[in-house]
Amino acid sequence: MSRFTKKKKEHIGLSPFALVFRGMKKTDKILLRAMDFDLEDVHELEVTSTEQLQTLTKSRKLTWLNIDGLDNVDLMENLARIFKIENNILSDVMNPSVRPKVEELENGIFITIKMLQYNDDNLTVENLSLIIADNTLISFQEQPGLTFEPIRDRIRKHKNKIRTSGSDYLAFALLDVVVDNYIYVIGLLGDKIESLEDEMTSDPSKDLLESINAYKRELNFLRKHIKPAREMILALAKLESEYIHDENHIHFRELQDNINEASELSDSYREILYDQLNIYHSSMSTKLNEIMRVLTVFSVIFIPLTFIVGVYGTNFENLPEVHWQHGYFLMWGVMLLTTLAMLWFFKRKKWF
Amino acid sequence: MSRFTKKKKEHIGLSPFALVFRGMKKTDKILLRAMDFDLEDVHELEVTSTEQLQTLTKSRKLTWLNIDGLDNVDLMENLARIFKIENNILSDVMNPSVRPKVEELENGIFITIKMLQYNDDNLTVENLSLIIADNTLISFQEQPGLTFEPIRDRIRKHKNKIRTSGSDYLAFALLDVVVDNYIYVIGLLGDKIESLEDEMTSDPSKDLLESINAYKRELNFLRKHIKPAREMILALAKLESEYIHDENHIHFRELQDNINEASELSDSYREILYDQLNIYHSSMSTKLNEIMRVLTVFSVIFIPLTFIVGVYGTNFENLPEVHWQHGYFLMWGVMLLTTLAMLWFFKRKKWF
Amino acid sequence: MSRFTKKKKEHIGLSPFALVFRGMKKTDKILLRAMDFDLEDVHELEVTSTEQLQTLTKSRKLTWLNIDGLDNVDLMENLARIFKIENNILSDVMNPSVRPKVEELENGIFITIKMLQYNDDNLTVENLSLIIADNTLISFQEQPGLTFEPIRDRIRKHKNKIRTSGSDYLAFALLDVVVDNYIYVIGLLGDKIESLEDEMTSDPSKDLLESINAYKRELNFLRKHIKPAREMILALAKLESEYIHDENHIHFRELQDNINEASELSDSYREILYDQLNIYHSSMSTKLNEIMRVLTVFSVIFIPLTFIVGVYGTNFENLPEVHWQHGYFLMWGVMLLTTLAMLWFFKRKKWF
Amino acid sequence: MSRFTKKKKEHIGLSPFALVFRGMKKTDKILLRAMDFDLEDVHELEVTSTEQLQTLTKSRKLTWLNIDGLDNVDLMENLARIFKIENNILSDVMNPSVRPKVEELENGIFITIKMLQYNDDNLTVENLSLIIADNTLISFQEQPGLTFEPIRDRIRKHKNKIRTSGSDYLAFALLDVVVDNYIYVIGLLGDKIESLEDEMTSDPSKDLLESINAYKRELNFLRKHIKPAREMILALAKLESEYIHDENHIHFRELQDNINEASELSDSYREILYDQLNIYHSSMSTKLNEIMRVLTVFSVIFIPLTFIVGVYGTNFENLPEVHWQHGYFLMWGVMLLTTLAMLWFFKRKKWF
Amino acid sequence: MSRFTKKKKEHIGLSPFALVFRGMKKTDKILLRAMDFDLEDVHELEVTSTEQLQTLTKSRKLTWLNIDGLDNVDLMENLARIFKIENNILSDVMNPSVRPKVEELENGIFITIKMLQYNDDNLTVENLSLIIADNTLISFQEQPGLTFEPIRDRIRKHKNKIRTSGSDYLAFALLDVVVDNYIYVIGLLGDKIESLEDEMTSDPSKDLLESINAYKRELNFLRKHIKPAREMILALAKLESEYIHDENHIHFRELQDNINEASELSDSYREILYDQLNIYHSSMSTKLNEIMRVLTVFSVIFIPLTFIVGVYGTNFENLPEVHWQHGYFLMWGVMLLTTLAMLWFFKRKKWF
Repeated sequence: MSRFTKKKKEHIGLSPFALVFRGMKKTDKILLRAMDFDLEDVHELEVTSTEQLQTLTKSRKLTWLNIDGLDNVDLMENLARIFKIENNILSDVMNPSVRPKVEELENGIFITIKMLQYNDDNLTVENLSLIIADNTLISFQEQPGLTFEPIRDRIRKHKNKIRTSGSDYLAFALLDVVVDNYIYVIGLLGDKIESLEDEMTSDPSKDLLESINAYKRELNFLRKHIKPAREMILALAKLESEYIHDENHIHFRELQDNINEASELSDSYREILYDQLNIYHSSMSTKLNEIMRVLTVFSVIFIPLTFIVGVYGTNFENLPEVHWQHGYFLMWGVMLLTTLAMLWFFKRKKWF
Repeated sequence: MSRFTKKKKEHIGLSPFALVFRGMKKTDKILLRAMDFDLEDVHELEVTSTEQLQTLTKSRKLTWLNIDGLDNVDLMENLARIFKIENNILSDVMNPSVRPKVEELENGIFITIKMLQYNDDNLTVENLSLIIADNTLISFQEQPGLTFEPIRDRIRKHKNKIRTSGSDYLAFALLDVVVDNYIYVIGLLGDKIESLEDEMTSDPSKDLLESINAYKRELNFLRKHIKPAREMILALAKLESEYIHDENHIHFRELQDNINEASELSDSYREILYDQLNIYHSSMSTKLNEIMRVLTVFSVIFIPLTFIVGVYGTNFENLPEVHWQHGYFLMWGVMLLTTLAMLWFFKRKKWF
Repeated sequence: MSRFTKKKKEHIGLSPFALVFRGMKKTDKILLRAMDFDLEDVHELEVTSTEQLQTLTKSRKLTWLNIDGLDNVDLMENLARIFKIENNILSDVMNPSVRPKVEELENGIFITIKMLQYNDDNLTVENLSLIIADNTLISFQEQPGLTFEPIRDRIRKHKNKIRTSGSDYLAFALLDVVVDNYIYVIGLLGDKIESLEDEMTSDPSKDLLESINAYKRELNFLRKHIKPAREMILALAKLESEYIHDENHIHFRELQDNINEASELSDSYREILYDQLNIYHSSMSTKLNEIMRVLTVFSVIFIPLTFIVGVYGTNFENLPEVHWQHGYFLMWGVMLLTTLAMLWFFKRKKWF
Repeated sequence: MSRFTKKKKEHIGLSPFALVFRGMKKTDKILLRAMDFDLEDVHELEVTSTEQLQTLTKSRKLTWLNIDGLDNVDLMENLARIFKIENNILSDVMNPSVRPKVEELENGIFITIKMLQYNDDNLTVENLSLIIADNTLISFQEQPGLTFEPIRDRIRKHKNKIRTSGSDYLAFALLDVVVDNYIYVIGLLGDKIESLEDEMTSDPSKDLLESINAYKRELNFLRKHIKPAREMILALAKLESEYIHDENHIHFRELQDNINEASELSDSYREILYDQLNIYHSSMSTKLNEIMRVLTVFSVIFIPLTFIVGVYGTNFENLPEVHWQHGYFLMWGVMLLTTLAMLWFFKRKKWF
Repeated sequence: MSRFTKKKKEHIGLSPFALVFRGMKKTDKILLRAMDFDLEDVHELEVTSTEQLQTLTKSRKLTWLNIDGLDNVDLMENLARIFKIENNILSDVMNPSVRPKVEELENGIFITIKMLQYNDDNLTVENLSLIIADNTLISFQEQPGLTFEPIRDRIRKHKNKIRTSGSDYLAFALLDVVVDNYIYVIGLLGDKIESLEDEMTSDPSKDLLESINAYKRELNFLRKHIKPAREMILALAKLESEYIHDENHIHFRELQDNINEASELSDSYREILYDQLNIYHSSMSTKLNEIMRVLTVFSVIFIPLTFIVGVYGTNFENLPEVHWQHGYFLMWGVMLLTTLAMLWFFKRKKWF
């Protein structure tokens, strides 16, 4: 299967307001989970009806609504109506090939970013979209997962900043998990890359080359997603909006530091991979050169010997040496001297 | 035929106001199609007379005039007069080697961009020029085609935003189709590139190299056209003009996201092609090395054997071994031992 | 001869006001041609005396004074005095290694750029300096030529914009010819480069490599001159000066588009050359590999055969096979089988 | 052990305010040393109690508090309370993988940078964090060391600028030592790199390649830390803060010059390493080519000789030459002539 | 000796105000030469006492004080006191590894740049520091030299601009000499590089490779010094200071053009060197390929011949051909035909 989302012929010319799910269905059941909390209380519920949604909009506490699964157009239209979200924003939410971006809305901020995770050794990509509104944070994921459990636990257990700092701080906390996961994922790949180094010097085999190429492909895949995420977070850290409190700006700058770290880490591993590739190629060619040199020297030593025995294999009537009593042994002597002379010459020239 | 439009000697020193068709005639008949519509009504007609054109300028509805074919100087002069277009703009329209650009006019905005499409496996380039005026959009193409049919269908069938949002939104819709086609075309090329990967590992042949080089050329061709288009769309998204409504700005920024996606997709495929080229070369050289190593080892094993039989082919009168009863079989034994010793040595050294 | 203008030891430490001709004399006779025109009349004359020059300064029409040849210091001093040009400007005019630049003067604008042309298959470089003054354009060339004849013809024949738009428009027209010549010259080189492609696949010879290297050198030479010219034209298009009329700004931006086209065209040809070089090298190495493989396989087949005949060439008294009646033919049979086995093995391994 | 600090799974989702030591414990005992001085007096003490810390805050002299060891959360909380440092700053101090940065606080400036040093031929990295407050400088190191002894000596011995120029000048002095150490460390590595050059031309061996690769890895490691430090110092030099005195700005610009020098020095060594690698590879391949050429020429000379003796080893009854009286010697003559002819040919072709 | 100035361990932690000579002593005697001049008079003297210096400060003419040799700390302190120069400036003057820079002082401008010159085929670097004060220019060089003699001659001989345009114009004149020397030095190196080209095609030998590598190293050395000089001159051309007269700004912009020319020239030579390296490698490998091909073809022709004579060397009793009367000559015929067939085959395949 292709690594890239392709444009489908029938989607060309579609209105940007058309609510069409453009991705692959990743989950069977769409799950809406809400957390409604202030410093004192935390209230969790699974939303199943439109009425519940409307009740949530009236809550004076901070509400975090998390939607897992994006392929239900009716639900999206309901959300759009209840939370006053513009159609083209929801169209972006439902399009998994949208680039990471941050956009100011009339009543909030829209953020979309890719989440990267290893599932059973496969690197998976998933879109996360956030809408930061006045007292509400809406997050959209393609499928349910445990990624944000640490945040839910922090909300449940600690009566501190996360309960009181507003929807922008909550969005920061989620994005921070996403970026930490980037670093974690790069670290896992990095472990595999670094483990190649020992094999490299001991026994450079053909499998090694395939591993290097596979890791290179995986790393490029990571880098391709980190680059636009970095641009997005840079834009977010610079954003002057009423929906981001002044005291939270520092956290978005921290996020920027983290994504820069991810980016630099991936740069470092790329350099290591390139070095490994060079070392592999040069050790392979060194090995071949060594073989060829030894074999060539070996062949060359036999060339004059074979010539000499050829000479005494001729049938000339008048061939003096063959009639000498010790001719045969003299021939062996000459051949021995020739061999020694050649070995001495090659040794001196450091040819083997 | 050359892939580049060359400057003709006789065009050097020409005035920028001279209306000269500088391209290759791509169509026999010039076709003028107009759509005149508001939220309620859609009126389509094929324009054949200057009077019809003048009537259109008086329409209070939104008018989209589409001209297919650029080599009629008289028609161009008529258009210039009726729609008050400056000569140097029309001179650009008639020049297929003009770079994508956006230019503010006194009474509108001039945009030109390249359209890329596959016609029977051949990638074709065509200029699209747009003039966004107050209540009118004029589009110029080099030849008739079905590219914009989805837009025409949206106008015909849906009583929505596209009928009421003005000529700038209509221009956005056309440009969106152009950029979607970029992504589609890159996707098609990408499919071909990705399909090489399986062949690569199974059987790297000379044809594969030619395919890689051909795809590289095609991809470079695409990239060369996408880069200036991207600059143009960036300029367009930043343009502050009375002819672009505030509420439509967001769409031009979306366009920018799309062209960025196209650009990144082409970057990714270029990297894949470079990787494939490297893998091809390294697998070719691995294959050759393997052959040479095996053959060299094979030759080397026979060298001492041939020497030994040479020794007993000499005609020395006093050559003891040939008179031994089992001399011949002893020689075979010696040769067998030599061979085994060498095989053991090569095996231990991992030379084959 | 060197491709670069070198600094001469004796010119180090010279005052920037010293009027010294620093180039190579390219013409014997210095030629001053003036055109004096308005919408109605065109008056052409060859200037031979200082009085004529002074008369020209009093003309109320637009005056274009063209000087071919730069090595007359007296003349330069006269011009400086009559047209009030500062010494350091004339010092630049007389220095062929000056970089393309645009400079605002007290009474005008000074522009210098390189002209590139093919003379009998040799690429020649020549400096063009322009001084845009209020009602006068002075142009300096190193030698007389036909480059600007199309402009002279447009002035002579057409009563239009070129006669009435002032010295800045005239300067634009000259620069446009220069840039069009860049594109034309790159196109000529491009034709030669593209014609290599057919040879490439049919018969990659050593001459081809020399052609590629020669074209690469020529293209680098072109690119080295286009890059600073592009910077200069960019500065010119941005220049806010009273000597450039508002309505002519659009033409300088057009010039910028043209030089960008030249630059991108040269980029494209450079990429093509690099691709050709890669294809050449890989096809050369493929050819060599093929030869070596076939020859090696051929040699390897004979190695055991030669060994076998060696065995039966030994002089052992007790060598049973030589006494068999069909021994000789059996040997041939064994050799035939060996050969077939090896061919089958090599074929199966796809070694030839 | 890995060269990179990896993200631990359990740290994902942690609050930025959580005071958790994220590094490796590098020291057993945490050491707090204070210097309290003005132009007249210098008072040094080892801080062991919270009371001592509180006394220091009341000192009207300049106080430099240096903490070696970062893994004591209680101590950090005390410091935070006494010096009014925000939690997220101390969280950065305790995180050794934090990027070099400068941050304005409400009551000072926070700076963090990496220190690079050779300990017994191992390059070690250590975090240095500085907090510039009104009359106080707090510095955090991972372990005790002698790096800042020269500064302590300057304070102890000289009644000059360092005693009177405030905490910002003191911070500059510490950073200057850090950057000087960068240059010193690069210089040490550079000595090793430059010493390779002599070996290179005399005897390029396999060890040399390993040295080059090891130095390349070390240099990349250095460069990876210098780059963000450079960004940080650039930001610091541009910072407009009340905590940096106007007359000290020039020193921070000097710091910038120094880090630029470090960066350029590392660039130069990288280029040298790349050149060395190229020279190594080309001298290795030259050596192999030379061997192969000589050996091939040697073999080729024997090929016709062996053929000739083969001819006279045939057993044809009617083989005239073998019956000639001087046939054997004539054969030697022919072989000698053949050999000379081939040697002459190879010499003329410059093949050996 | 190393090509880079290393940081010495004992200089780490030194105050930026410490006047310590950090370079290598290049001259025995320190020489102070003063020129004191206005439009009418020029007065030259060698300064030997502090009183003379103090007299010079009172001169109302323009004073140029040139100091050759930097290792006298007492003299430096005297200069600092008399001309009111800050200590950290003189510390930079005495540090030969300082980067080129321009700095505004309270009473003038401080400029430092590297001078590059060939002394007996060795490229030498020397620091030039300039202090532009109100009526005084102080220049510091590491050793006496003839570099600025042309400027002294211009002052001595011509009653013109250089005598009346102030210390900034004089500084420009000195810097102009420095930059002209860059271009001259690059030109000398360029001549050597260009002279390689003829050898390249005629006889690519191993020495050639060493020359290319040596010139590459020299060019990199030049480029490393030109780059920061260029930055410095750019900063100087942009500097708005009361110590630079408006009418002299144009000269500093000219200086910028010159250093850009130097930089581009060095870029061009670098490209030429890279091309030469590629041509060298490809011509070496072409040569080797040619040799190997010819020798291999030669060997291959003899392989079947040697086999044939081997066949007739066997001792089978029943070997019909050896008993034929013309068997020997038939064998020669067969061998001749075999050879011709192979030659025809190789010729057709264009293998030699």
